[in-house]
Amino acid sequence: MFITFEGIDGSGKSTQARRLAEYFRAEGREVVLTREPGGSPGAEEIRRLLVEGEPERWSAETEILLFTAARRDHLERTVLPALERGAIVISDRFADSTRVYQGVAQPELRVLVDNLHDLMIGREPDLTFILDIDPAEGLARGMHRLAGAAIDESRFEKRGLPFQESLREGFLGLAAEFPDRFRVIPAEGGPEEVFGRIVGVVEAESPCPA
Amino acid sequence: MFITFEGIDGSGKSTQARRLAEYFRAEGREVVLTREPGGSPGAEEIRRLLVEGEPERWSAETEILLFTAARRDHLERTVLPALERGAIVISDRFADSTRVYQGVAQPELRVLVDNLHDLMIGREPDLTFILDIDPAEGLARGMHRLAGAAIDESRFEKRGLPFQESLREGFLGLAAEFPDRFRVIPAEGGPEEVFGRIVGVVEAESPCPA
Repeated sequence: MFITFEGIDGSGKSTQARRLAEYFRAEGREVVLTREPGGSPGAEEIRRLLVEGEPERWSAETEILLFTAARRDHLERTVLPALERGAIVISDRFADSTRVYQGVAQPELRVLVDNLHDLMIGREPDLTFILDIDPAEGLARGMHRLAGAAIDESRFEKRGLPFQESLREGFLGLAAEFPDRFRVIPAEGGPEEVFGRIVGVVEAESPCPA
Repeated sequence: MFITFEGIDGSGKSTQARRLAEYFRAEGREVVLTREPGGSPGAEEIRRLLVEGEPERWSAETEILLFTAARRDHLERTVLPALERGAIVISDRFADSTRVYQGVAQPELRVLVDNLHDLMIGREPDLTFILDIDPAEGLARGMHRLAGAAIDESRFEKRGLPFQESLREGFLGLAAEFPDRFRVIPAEGGPEEVFGRIVGVVEAESPCPA
């Protein structure tokens, strides 16, 4: 079982991914909790090329190639070996983030992202949770978190409310496109409340837990 | 005019590329002399991921993605801007090296390399020189050069004579496949002699120099 969490900044993906990992571990399952970009030693090095330096450092196309290189390494070295030994893999972001972020910036790039994915990755998660939050609230949560960390806020602020709103539309559009795999989870309320919604879906999807 | 030099290790690509750059400059032309992997600040950083670390650090597929990301950056930031302002671009290696090196290691990868090239690069050189040398001589020249540099020779040695022979076949095969673009230059003899052969081709291709 390969499960991913997607959504805009501040929607609570990392928190909920961690809670779901704890939930399955409490059931005695092996869980590999991972994230993108990164998730394997090689992919973490490619991540550094993507998140450090000037925002205009790479063109969108080069960026897509680097994300795909990191994803291929993550898939080969972390995700597939874990799935093969029967573990549950939970990833904070995967290919859908690339589809949405690049597609929102330049709609014509969505086809390129999909073609590259088909050629070099060819694997989708079994289940993807979109944590759906009001972009203004997500942005406030994200800014709050950044205030506590040594991160350059200007880069985050530049991708302000209109951008977050477009991303939200992008994620919801993707969920409508592939309803079999996506589950949209309202992410308002406390983390306990949101996690209750996720567990509800997980239990409905696995009527006969091991 | 976009000209590339290809061939096995020790065939004299860098020397001849530099000489050809000097030749065109002496004619008053602007020349951009570049190389792969690398050739732009971003691509040089990706190059470090490719040439440093353990040889098994990346799978062939991830390696192809990283080479293509570096090539895209090199093309966008160095090659195309130079061609647009009328300069001659001479590159020591380009996409044909990826085709041959990956294709020799695993023949089924050639299709993948070509598909990725068509999707993300989509540009071939106007003229490609294959410097064709006896692999044993190329290997001897390469080892001699490495002995003077602080490079780990074991990695070079591992890719010994049979591998160099397969690479040579690969380059000659590619030249036969695309005869319009490729010119095979025998690379035996001194650098002056080899350069004479290259200039002969250049003059035949450009009957009316500016």
